[in-house]
Amino acid sequence: MRAALDPTLYLVTDTALSCPRTVPDVVRAAVTGGVTAVQVRDKDASRRELYELTLAVRAVLPPGVALFVNDAVDVALLAGADGVHVGQDDLPPAEVRALIGPDRLLGLSAGNPAELAVALALPPGTVDVVGIGPVWSTPTKPDAGAGLGPAGVAALAAGARAAGLRSVAIGGISAANAASVTGVDGVCVVSAVCAAPDPEAAARELRAAVGVLA
Amino acid sequence: MRAALDPTLYLVTDTALSCPRTVPDVVRAAVTGGVTAVQVRDKDASRRELYELTLAVRAVLPPGVALFVNDAVDVALLAGADGVHVGQDDLPPAEVRALIGPDRLLGLSAGNPAELAVALALPPGTVDVVGIGPVWSTPTKPDAGAGLGPAGVAALAAGARAAGLRSVAIGGISAANAASVTGVDGVCVVSAVCAAPDPEAAARELRAAVGVLA
Repeated sequence: MRAALDPTLYLVTDTALSCPRTVPDVVRAAVTGGVTAVQVRDKDASRRELYELTLAVRAVLPPGVALFVNDAVDVALLAGADGVHVGQDDLPPAEVRALIGPDRLLGLSAGNPAELAVALALPPGTVDVVGIGPVWSTPTKPDAGAGLGPAGVAALAAGARAAGLRSVAIGGISAANAASVTGVDGVCVVSAVCAAPDPEAAARELRAAVGVLA
Repeated sequence: MRAALDPTLYLVTDTALSCPRTVPDVVRAAVTGGVTAVQVRDKDASRRELYELTLAVRAVLPPGVALFVNDAVDVALLAGADGVHVGQDDLPPAEVRALIGPDRLLGLSAGNPAELAVALALPPGTVDVVGIGPVWSTPTKPDAGAGLGPAGVAALAAGARAAGLRSVAIGGISAANAASVTGVDGVCVVSAVCAAPDPEAAARELRAAVGVLA
């Protein structure tokens, strides 16, 4: 059975922004504050470091908070994660689904209608959740292009929803602007939690702000 | 059944050094010249690029030439490679063996007695072949440390052989110096083939030089 996913407030980890705290410390606090799903992402880590980081994050997650690994399907499998998130330049989604089997979750990034079409063209059950963004341009992913804006996100999210896919918005989302993001099933945050002096309080504020999605 | 491996002349690909030729073009020529095993390595490639590169290399390999993928276990599985090669900072060998199953080959780098001990401490059948090096310091892997020299390589190779593991030497090996590398089951080359004006001729020369190992 496909792993459960509550995408309401989806944290993507950033090791550098979490410093001097460890990523698991930030994740633990963020989950206490209301984060509902976590993706371990560290493009600078070796595969072994990413594996160890994923195990450490997994150890602090309560049941019901889905754990994704960015890009590294092998790490996700070995670490017993609930799912994998891939970008459009990572391994192709159909191949990833073949590797992870039917029970794990698969997320795919989509930044424009053509990229969303990739997700929609796949057999049902391949992709579970589409990461739409960036909503606003963001310093944590400077190559992600100009922001789609809330209207652009809502348009892509409507396309995903019509095909039975869930969606989350990502890119520059904070407690101050989260309420303007609509049409998606949740919001992803990186720096708004990882760089916050108090990740638990930051997550709590965000969770209150995204409550309008429900 | 474990995939067959003839490690006599083992080519590790380098995309930049192969330019302006493609990696598959260099591999095809090198195999014609006598290369017996190929490892696709490209630390700069995205996971998707590495997957596509591995498929393209696989398409030019004749039966009997084992295909390894460096580090990326997921890519190796998806591309139907014969094996994976991991460094000491990549995913741990026992975990990699669990992912790849009993039929694929697993290589592990070892640059000193402590790293070799990692391989020797694993259950029999975990690792198939140990990559020992660098023999000489090499511009293609500037972080690999000073060279072990032929005597250092032979000492590590003897330890591997005593434990039933095969070994290949890597690092700075050329047709001019390959004959001085002894005690191993084969030699790995990168620039000696990938940067050669005529990879087929370079492989043929190397194959003649390493003949003394047999």
